[in-house]
Amino acid sequence: MNRPLFEDVLRDNGLDGFVGTTAESVTWLSGYWAMPQWIRRGPQAYAFQPREAGGESFVVTGTGLLDHAADQDLYVRAFHRYGFFAYEDFAEGGGPEAVRLRKMLRGPEHESPAHALAQALRQAGMRGGRVGIELDGLASGVFERVRELAPEVELIRSDALSKKFRAIKTPEEVARLRESGRIAERSILAALEGLREGESEADLALRFHGRTVADGAFPVLGCIGFSERGALPNVDPSPHRKLKRGDTIRFDVGGRYRHYRADIARIASFGEPSDRARKSHHAVQAGIERAYEIIRPGLPASTLFKEIMDTVRKSGLPHYRRNHVGHGIGLDGYEVPALTENSTDVLQPGMVMCIETPYYELGFGGFQVEDMVTVTEAGVESLMTLPRDLMLR
Amino acid sequence: MNRPLFEDVLRDNGLDGFVGTTAESVTWLSGYWAMPQWIRRGPQAYAFQPREAGGESFVVTGTGLLDHAADQDLYVRAFHRYGFFAYEDFAEGGGPEAVRLRKMLRGPEHESPAHALAQALRQAGMRGGRVGIELDGLASGVFERVRELAPEVELIRSDALSKKFRAIKTPEEVARLRESGRIAERSILAALEGLREGESEADLALRFHGRTVADGAFPVLGCIGFSERGALPNVDPSPHRKLKRGDTIRFDVGGRYRHYRADIARIASFGEPSDRARKSHHAVQAGIERAYEIIRPGLPASTLFKEIMDTVRKSGLPHYRRNHVGHGIGLDGYEVPALTENSTDVLQPGMVMCIETPYYELGFGGFQVEDMVTVTEAGVESLMTLPRDLMLR
Repeated sequence: MNRPLFEDVLRDNGLDGFVGTTAESVTWLSGYWAMPQWIRRGPQAYAFQPREAGGESFVVTGTGLLDHAADQDLYVRAFHRYGFFAYEDFAEGGGPEAVRLRKMLRGPEHESPAHALAQALRQAGMRGGRVGIELDGLASGVFERVRELAPEVELIRSDALSKKFRAIKTPEEVARLRESGRIAERSILAALEGLREGESEADLALRFHGRTVADGAFPVLGCIGFSERGALPNVDPSPHRKLKRGDTIRFDVGGRYRHYRADIARIASFGEPSDRARKSHHAVQAGIERAYEIIRPGLPASTLFKEIMDTVRKSGLPHYRRNHVGHGIGLDGYEVPALTENSTDVLQPGMVMCIETPYYELGFGGFQVEDMVTVTEAGVESLMTLPRDLMLR
Repeated sequence: MNRPLFEDVLRDNGLDGFVGTTAESVTWLSGYWAMPQWIRRGPQAYAFQPREAGGESFVVTGTGLLDHAADQDLYVRAFHRYGFFAYEDFAEGGGPEAVRLRKMLRGPEHESPAHALAQALRQAGMRGGRVGIELDGLASGVFERVRELAPEVELIRSDALSKKFRAIKTPEEVARLRESGRIAERSILAALEGLREGESEADLALRFHGRTVADGAFPVLGCIGFSERGALPNVDPSPHRKLKRGDTIRFDVGGRYRHYRADIARIASFGEPSDRARKSHHAVQAGIERAYEIIRPGLPASTLFKEIMDTVRKSGLPHYRRNHVGHGIGLDGYEVPALTENSTDVLQPGMVMCIETPYYELGFGGFQVEDMVTVTEAGVESLMTLPRDLMLR
């Protein structure tokens, strides 16, 4: 986690601490990755950090999920567990995980997530304090129950805050996002390898995700569409649409590497593309090239939006329209900043964002260049290595 | 969807219709798979079905997600969209997706999910009606806003209902669950193929997930642990723990195939297992063999729990303890029935469930047999093909 930014955001909001309840926030605040919380909706795990670095941080989790806490390299100090889970233990031995887990199991077994959280907040010295809490990840009724059980802690609904303090990435986060982006690039190349007439969008998707897995990431986003199907923004690769000479192929793709997302886009062409396809691609690419020229700390996101839109319009698509031309990326696929017309975000060093200019024309095709970049003191650094040009195959 | 069960559950709860707001419910109620809703928390898509089959069903979704609706085979009649999204359209042509999408885009663009839902409920004739709604998938504030905008519709918080009507699967759902389970089995075999001393848990996970992807599924659950690490219930495959002769290997794994989950477990042994390992495996396997003998329609889940527990205890693990010995499975990994001591669920034909007897002994190992089965009129049918024995390698 980026502690200085976290402290600033809490201070601006008059908070003494923050309880994250969504999978992303829990991982960010504590390093704790509770797998069941990531793969399903429902399992309750929370992480707390006090505003002041010296204070007590903690994780609340189910007894059955403590194994992850024992096996991971976390930066919280205390663990509060709820519910029964049968770990048997007759030996003294085992690896370091067993040793840590035994220690964690010595703490009291609370009867519910609410009981554990209420007790943990008191123990962390939050009596009389103002504590921000996300409601998004809380099971129904937990918020009200914690207020009853710990009336001396003032809980403030603060769902919007975590995106603020997650906006500026640490070097470790940038490194993971870079690798996540690189895996997506290599997966695009794998999908295009040995491309042949008559194979389907789904065939390409198999090669795409296969490479993602082989490179140690998890498949998440895999929109791959040929020509007119490329105009479907969220195109689900079809086993029926077969590749023909002259087809364009739109990739809007990215997996998850060490919990961090990728989201990139490239256009390929199987054989010679039409003039219209070339022209459309040229325009959306020009928007991204312009972004690279002007991104620097202090640039308002709304200015970046305007510059990119103007460039695409001047470069061959005068009717180009978009809600946004990019977004932050990190543990989630959409983070701060939002690159929209009315965004109030301002670019800052350490932000990682996707810059993108998708163009969807029904019955014709989809064209999109999307890069992951990080804002640096000097301006901008691309996390990509693939050229942004139309890829002729 | 299983309409007769849906109607029964709504009738029992005095409801005239139901709005699903979680990814699983939306897909179940309408066939609509809104990818962004599945891969992230936040995107708002809803599906409504009236209790009476002749009434108007609908989907509410963002304009930018309508492409999925146009490209998928849905069983709802109306689409209500909110928000602006730039689809350009100069051609008449395009595939059937474009034709359907153009038609959907002709409807009004509502300013928010709440506006669209309020209007859609009125149009579906729900004025004066009692409508169940899930809160779990709703963004903050949407529930209150819909109540303001459609005060003549009585909205009843009904989060628990969808698990009830999803409990009994259609033949199509059983077929997908079977294939999902088979892919998990083949992925276990792939992980064990060419097993060699010195490779890591993470190496096996790569082969496991690689096969899952190659077979057309998405990786979800991939707990693979050697010996003492197998005692960590949610073990995250480590690149550091290297395979040694005599290690046991616990797999608790399963992906997602055409949206349906798998969740199965097997134990392998690299070389000769210890007597204790054999004995532990024998006991947990005996519990599952007993389940196959007694599962039939009408059996209380609590009786099944007791029979399985007694069998494991009599078969070599007298101290065996568990919260549950299985759970329903479908679009989500945990559905009805719950196989617990105090469960009030009763087995019915068409239920698909995991039966499992995990045993975790710190410092020693984890042993688990988990099968996916379906309850039939005649008793039980396994969705598995792999033997349940300890797999010697």
